Amino acid sequence: MKKTFRLEHDFLGERKIDDSVYYGIQTLRAIENFHITGTPVSQEPLFIQALGYVKKAAAMANMQLGVIPADVAQAIIYASDRLISGELTDQFPTDMIQGGAGTSVNMNANEVIANIGLEYMGHPKGAYEYLHPNNHVNCSQSTNDAYPTAFRIALYLKINGMLRSLDLLQRSFGKKGKEFANVLKMGRTQLQDAVPMSLGAEFNAFATTLREDIQRLREMQALLTEVNMGATAIGTAINAPEGYPQLVTQYLGEITGLPIVLATDLIEATSDTGAYVLISGMLKRTAVKISKICNDLRLLSSGPRVGLHEINLPQLQPGSSIMPGKVNPVIPEVVNQTAYYVIGADLTITMASEAGQLQLNVMEPVIAYSLFTMLTYMQRACDTLRKKCVDGITANAEASREMVMNSIGIVTALNPLLGYETCAAIAKEALNSGKSIHQIVVDEKAYITQQQWDEIYSFENMIHPHYVN
Amino acid sequence: MKKTFRLEHDFLGERKIDDSVYYGIQTLRAIENFHITGTPVSQEPLFIQALGYVKKAAAMANMQLGVIPADVAQAIIYASDRLISGELTDQFPTDMIQGGAGTSVNMNANEVIANIGLEYMGHPKGAYEYLHPNNHVNCSQSTNDAYPTAFRIALYLKINGMLRSLDLLQRSFGKKGKEFANVLKMGRTQLQDAVPMSLGAEFNAFATTLREDIQRLREMQALLTEVNMGATAIGTAINAPEGYPQLVTQYLGEITGLPIVLATDLIEATSDTGAYVLISGMLKRTAVKISKICNDLRLLSSGPRVGLHEINLPQLQPGSSIMPGKVNPVIPEVVNQTAYYVIGADLTITMASEAGQLQLNVMEPVIAYSLFTMLTYMQRACDTLRKKCVDGITANAEASREMVMNSIGIVTALNPLLGYETCAAIAKEALNSGKSIHQIVVDEKAYITQQQWDEIYSFENMIHPHYVN
Amino acid sequence: MKKTFRLEHDFLGERKIDDSVYYGIQTLRAIENFHITGTPVSQEPLFIQALGYVKKAAAMANMQLGVIPADVAQAIIYASDRLISGELTDQFPTDMIQGGAGTSVNMNANEVIANIGLEYMGHPKGAYEYLHPNNHVNCSQSTNDAYPTAFRIALYLKINGMLRSLDLLQRSFGKKGKEFANVLKMGRTQLQDAVPMSLGAEFNAFATTLREDIQRLREMQALLTEVNMGATAIGTAINAPEGYPQLVTQYLGEITGLPIVLATDLIEATSDTGAYVLISGMLKRTAVKISKICNDLRLLSSGPRVGLHEINLPQLQPGSSIMPGKVNPVIPEVVNQTAYYVIGADLTITMASEAGQLQLNVMEPVIAYSLFTMLTYMQRACDTLRKKCVDGITANAEASREMVMNSIGIVTALNPLLGYETCAAIAKEALNSGKSIHQIVVDEKAYITQQQWDEIYSFENMIHPHYVN
Amino acid sequence: MKKTFRLEHDFLGERKIDDSVYYGIQTLRAIENFHITGTPVSQEPLFIQALGYVKKAAAMANMQLGVIPADVAQAIIYASDRLISGELTDQFPTDMIQGGAGTSVNMNANEVIANIGLEYMGHPKGAYEYLHPNNHVNCSQSTNDAYPTAFRIALYLKINGMLRSLDLLQRSFGKKGKEFANVLKMGRTQLQDAVPMSLGAEFNAFATTLREDIQRLREMQALLTEVNMGATAIGTAINAPEGYPQLVTQYLGEITGLPIVLATDLIEATSDTGAYVLISGMLKRTAVKISKICNDLRLLSSGPRVGLHEINLPQLQPGSSIMPGKVNPVIPEVVNQTAYYVIGADLTITMASEAGQLQLNVMEPVIAYSLFTMLTYMQRACDTLRKKCVDGITANAEASREMVMNSIGIVTALNPLLGYETCAAIAKEALNSGKSIHQIVVDEKAYITQQQWDEIYSFENMIHPHYVN
Repeated sequence: MKKTFRLEHDFLGERKIDDSVYYGIQTLRAIENFHITGTPVSQEPLFIQALGYVKKAAAMANMQLGVIPADVAQAIIYASDRLISGELTDQFPTDMIQGGAGTSVNMNANEVIANIGLEYMGHPKGAYEYLHPNNHVNCSQSTNDAYPTAFRIALYLKINGMLRSLDLLQRSFGKKGKEFANVLKMGRTQLQDAVPMSLGAEFNAFATTLREDIQRLREMQALLTEVNMGATAIGTAINAPEGYPQLVTQYLGEITGLPIVLATDLIEATSDTGAYVLISGMLKRTAVKISKICNDLRLLSSGPRVGLHEINLPQLQPGSSIMPGKVNPVIPEVVNQTAYYVIGADLTITMASEAGQLQLNVMEPVIAYSLFTMLTYMQRACDTLRKKCVDGITANAEASREMVMNSIGIVTALNPLLGYETCAAIAKEALNSGKSIHQIVVDEKAYITQQQWDEIYSFENMIHPHYVN
Repeated sequence: MKKTFRLEHDFLGERKIDDSVYYGIQTLRAIENFHITGTPVSQEPLFIQALGYVKKAAAMANMQLGVIPADVAQAIIYASDRLISGELTDQFPTDMIQGGAGTSVNMNANEVIANIGLEYMGHPKGAYEYLHPNNHVNCSQSTNDAYPTAFRIALYLKINGMLRSLDLLQRSFGKKGKEFANVLKMGRTQLQDAVPMSLGAEFNAFATTLREDIQRLREMQALLTEVNMGATAIGTAINAPEGYPQLVTQYLGEITGLPIVLATDLIEATSDTGAYVLISGMLKRTAVKISKICNDLRLLSSGPRVGLHEINLPQLQPGSSIMPGKVNPVIPEVVNQTAYYVIGADLTITMASEAGQLQLNVMEPVIAYSLFTMLTYMQRACDTLRKKCVDGITANAEASREMVMNSIGIVTALNPLLGYETCAAIAKEALNSGKSIHQIVVDEKAYITQQQWDEIYSFENMIHPHYVN
Repeated sequence: MKKTFRLEHDFLGERKIDDSVYYGIQTLRAIENFHITGTPVSQEPLFIQALGYVKKAAAMANMQLGVIPADVAQAIIYASDRLISGELTDQFPTDMIQGGAGTSVNMNANEVIANIGLEYMGHPKGAYEYLHPNNHVNCSQSTNDAYPTAFRIALYLKINGMLRSLDLLQRSFGKKGKEFANVLKMGRTQLQDAVPMSLGAEFNAFATTLREDIQRLREMQALLTEVNMGATAIGTAINAPEGYPQLVTQYLGEITGLPIVLATDLIEATSDTGAYVLISGMLKRTAVKISKICNDLRLLSSGPRVGLHEINLPQLQPGSSIMPGKVNPVIPEVVNQTAYYVIGADLTITMASEAGQLQLNVMEPVIAYSLFTMLTYMQRACDTLRKKCVDGITANAEASREMVMNSIGIVTALNPLLGYETCAAIAKEALNSGKSIHQIVVDEKAYITQQQWDEIYSFENMIHPHYVN
Repeated sequence: MKKTFRLEHDFLGERKIDDSVYYGIQTLRAIENFHITGTPVSQEPLFIQALGYVKKAAAMANMQLGVIPADVAQAIIYASDRLISGELTDQFPTDMIQGGAGTSVNMNANEVIANIGLEYMGHPKGAYEYLHPNNHVNCSQSTNDAYPTAFRIALYLKINGMLRSLDLLQRSFGKKGKEFANVLKMGRTQLQDAVPMSLGAEFNAFATTLREDIQRLREMQALLTEVNMGATAIGTAINAPEGYPQLVTQYLGEITGLPIVLATDLIEATSDTGAYVLISGMLKRTAVKISKICNDLRLLSSGPRVGLHEINLPQLQPGSSIMPGKVNPVIPEVVNQTAYYVIGADLTITMASEAGQLQLNVMEPVIAYSLFTMLTYMQRACDTLRKKCVDGITANAEASREMVMNSIGIVTALNPLLGYETCAAIAKEALNSGKSIHQIVVDEKAYITQQQWDEIYSFENMIHPHYVN
């Protein structure tokens, strides 16, 4: 098939555009200018969907306020709906990181929508006199309100996915919490034997700590519903008709179904990236927590003979190219690494936010790229951890119980009865002699009777100690 | 005066303690073991006050539940009150960073309280048979609940100070916002001339963005009111009498006046450091915002002849040892540096949080040290910025207005009238020829009349543009 | 075409493998287990090439030492050469981040080489009794020496590309340094007018600072030539024949042409990731420098009317969807963002390095992923900056010179003649009155003659001041 | 005693100065303006010493070049020598973090030296007409060359101390390496039992890895010897007499005994902070390594009953306020925390370096503060780790050996004899049945004879395996 071209121009000159594509000259310039990550916007479909929402809402408001003709508006709405439906993602070749504060992404959307709209109106692509990327699709907008608004909506939607995966993960930990409720094990502080607990309580704590993160992340997700539509270039609403900011915001809320509100200080809202910093910091917290959990899973499954070996992780692959039979905790390991990635990305966002100057933060594309990537990786990591690891964990209950009874740490339960100093002396003797606590306090020193021992060191009392004195 | 000594012992042996001090053998060991920062706990009086609250509440609960005698409890309460009142901070020589997850700080408090209590009871220091640091002062507690609870309360109180300073700072910006409401200036995006705005709006945006941080920080401060008192060693409440966790929490709320609640999952709460990560992330956000503001202040005051020079910062000191008459933006500069410190400290906290293992995060002391330092530095930076800089800023209104009228960016206001492409051509001609927009659009091309010009380019319409088409 | 399958097994069971692929069961498990980044090893061809070098060198050493038969070795060498030549990258679907410390990548290579070797020997794929991925291809190796060695070689080669791009960039700055040698401009410290300089000197400094980085990076690149081949599992050389470590290292040097040496402490070398931390820190430094340069380029080109506007960056795309004629410094902006990415990635590496435990750092895959990505992005950023920006920069020489002569900062040159305090008074008067320095010191106060003025404020003397007193 | 005052003025006005102090009006302004850290320059005596070196060298060069009178120069040299000797540190109350790029510190030195010099000359303090802080002490200098040069020299000297402490630490590890040469233990990869090794080799690896850091740090320390004396304000050498840069550099080398050289591009050198970034990155690497070592020490000493417990750390303090007899690895813990501090400080430096603009990096004070603090903390951490922990570590040799013989990982040694797949089957059986490898391969399956077993599993062969097939 012969390729045909159309000519497009901007104020820098004229260029040939492959007529099979919907994007135009400014997208072409973006392709030529920006090639850093090799990851095009097309890989983030929610972003394209959100651009569709923004352009549709703007067209509706512009039409109602009479600043663009109804047929033009209808064509824009039609085209935006196709973006919203997830079509045409391949028309977004712009690299995720660009200079220009998102102008290339916004113009990519403007051009694609204009050309789809032109087709819909019966015009050839590029006949911008009928439907212009700037004058019509971008009417009453600037990149500086359209881009961050679309980004915020996309981020909101993407966080929904993250919340689902986090919730499934915490449920998995919760189930294991129940399953292991009767498994006695040694609690450890500072890697030293401390006092007994149930393995179930340990897994429940993993569930609890992630549930808290779901709650916090949801609170912060809500910060994204404040948008600056109508701010246009710097927040003074230049080129936007009276009443437009309110109207476009209302439409945006209606078509997204989200509780979108207009920022009260549009100047501030146009340069502010605080919500991203906070959400990134929150994702970092989740990464830190999940990394800590994975560290614990790796410690608890260490061994099999020369480690703690209280639990077994599912065996997924031979663990070594040289050591036969070795099986490694590969899933927690990959999740740890994902967490380090996320923590690094949070720093990228911090620096990008700090670099904002005057009326705009021009570094928003790398913030978007980083947040999208963090969420993609983290969500995959949560799903992987749940399905490939947590759901299949089993306990070495018997060995674990024996280790508790053989431990020195159980002497703590005698504090109220015998006092801290006597107990410390018992502990010291046990450590030096290798004897068990039972041997010393019941058999040799008769500090307590066997009956007392049985009461204090019953499973139930070790898991939920009752105060005895 | 002759120094006298008393002998104290722990299970590692016996040591001589200078009898003039209230702390005991374990504090002595801490002094010997930990000397990294050279910053003793005594430099953080709120922490000592909070330790007083915790020990007092514990004594009240222990007395009511009958696990320590009333006279012993009264002595502990008396001593704790002295800590609360801010006395005796010099009795806390323990370095802010220690190994042992805060054990040394907790024991430092236990020992000081025990010896003050002993004096109160009429006994000599060290007569621990009457009032024991572990058996009585620390009764029903572990470092692992007492230390983080005290830290959380201290942090809560310290954030109050930060909130006050932030509020004063945003008010100062707000006042300047009003003062500069009629100063016309060029808004800038990407350091390029964009469209006009008022200098007042720019300063108002600084106020707005800090007000949002006050709100967010307050929300996060509330996370600190959840404590794990009664968890004891690892969250199983071993050695704590029935009902104690609820009771001590209730007392703690009463004596601090804070809405303290008991964590629902004490196992989780004992190892969790999520609240610190989030608060640190929030302080990082504030640092990022204030750093951005300072960058803007430095840009706007650049010059005096070869810069933007829209505003003047107060002159505080000669700016150079060689360049006569040079005056530098030294206050924004020192505030920027403080922000970088805070951002670095946030990373320290992130790493410390991730390093928590199993039932306890042993790295909590460096988290405490970092958060206290961040807050101290940031609060001082806010106060310095306000008093030494913001309050004295003046505007170069006339020069600023002239630059606007001489700019090319004001052509944007003609978009709705002339269309984006015509305006782009005008802009290009202005840039290449050096002409003003007025010259081209009114004098030469007569695109608009002088009357239209005057309407569009009135001060009011430039600050709050009305849509013209 | 009908798909055919072969059966493969490992100690976890049996799986069907699409017979068209060269990889085997362990790679299949990796695909199933690890899906975080979506970036397969195939996207890093240098890594596959380096795996070819390692496997070839091992086969040569094993053959010479008689631990694998010659025909088997020849088949491995043949297959390795195909990897080295850049073929078959599509046979490496393993995700860049995996658990297992690189075992999946090593096994991916072992399996692909085994099956290519089997074809070469005339056997069907999977006939591992003739050429076994573990027993033969991985003979005398472990993932723990083969993977880091391949990574180091790949990194070494990749840094070569980075060095080339850095060198081209510094040359571009150097050329501009020459071109702008006679452009007078105001030097600025703390964003305040300081003393005059030439624009050429400013650009030369950019070249100088990058040249230093080339030198440093080259020094650090050399650290990568120390490898741990023969260490096998943990550095004790278990399963490796006598003399093998030395021999394989020698062969590796010969076939790569790099000065490869064997680490003296193989235990240390097997868990050590220090070289990566340092190289990452070095790349961070380069990112910091380039980011600073881009900040400067954006400042110097700010305007066009209400900024410094000493230089013009090439116009690459319309700068705004709303502001006609606006052109933005999009290339420096995208480079700044790349720098923030790199700085974030350095943190990822730091955390991954710190997380190494005991005899191995299991987090090496995320280190590899991060370093490869840093280098890819940075190299592209350098090339983009050079070609799309630096090479086309022009100077606004006349305006720049006028600003200098109109500045107050030029009074510094009179210090040796008039003393610091008199000069400070002159500066103050100039600032308050708006007068020029010339007006005050020559016309009004006659501190110096016009002749002295002309001598001191000649272009040459401003660029390279001679001491006058 | 009645306080007396003198009047001093600068171009901002007149102030009363307590006549007992040597510093003057600009230091007073610094005290008033900067109060962030509360840490005065006086706490870094090496910095004051280095300022003495710089001022002395400048006076010598200025005298020789005839730009200041000999008696004035002699007075400056006298005063500088007193700074060099460590006196008068209390005259440096300026906060470590200031705005002004170090101007306050430089002026603090200029004023102190001027007033000491005046006393020496027989004049009262403040009689600056005889010896002026700017015109004489600062002659041919700017803050922008004097401050960074002094900082570099101070940093160089401070690194010497760090190198000493690192060397002592690696020697301690090396001694333990020898002491534990015959202790057999299980090597671990990914926290899973791997293959045997000696505990000595593990400790030797700690020594090796630190020795490498000593070497690298020494190489980077050398970067600090390049200085920009004579650059004055921005590198054009304005106000410096012909030949001065070379001469002052030569004198500086002579009086410090360091191989000081003059930067070839003074413009670049005046704004460049690359050496600090690299050295900070190097200290970060050392922190990462030491943190990893401490993590290992904590793992290896975990227990005593329910952990790895291969080694015992010295007991330094009771480990718990509740758990009797518990002793914690408090020293590694405090060192870990120090490492996190250092890693955070590296980020502060990164951001400060990136924030440099145009001809100067105004953020240098926070870089200085961070680097000095990193070094202070790290050096103390190294000394603490060595004296309080490493030197007293003992091995649990017998238990450790038994764990090895009871492990599954020892089957790896049979790979060359039996092949990877047979060994994997043996491993699987051992894991499932609980049998030992010996039981399976000798007693039950007779894969090898007892004699072969004894040979392969001799201590010597496990530590340094010979290839058997």
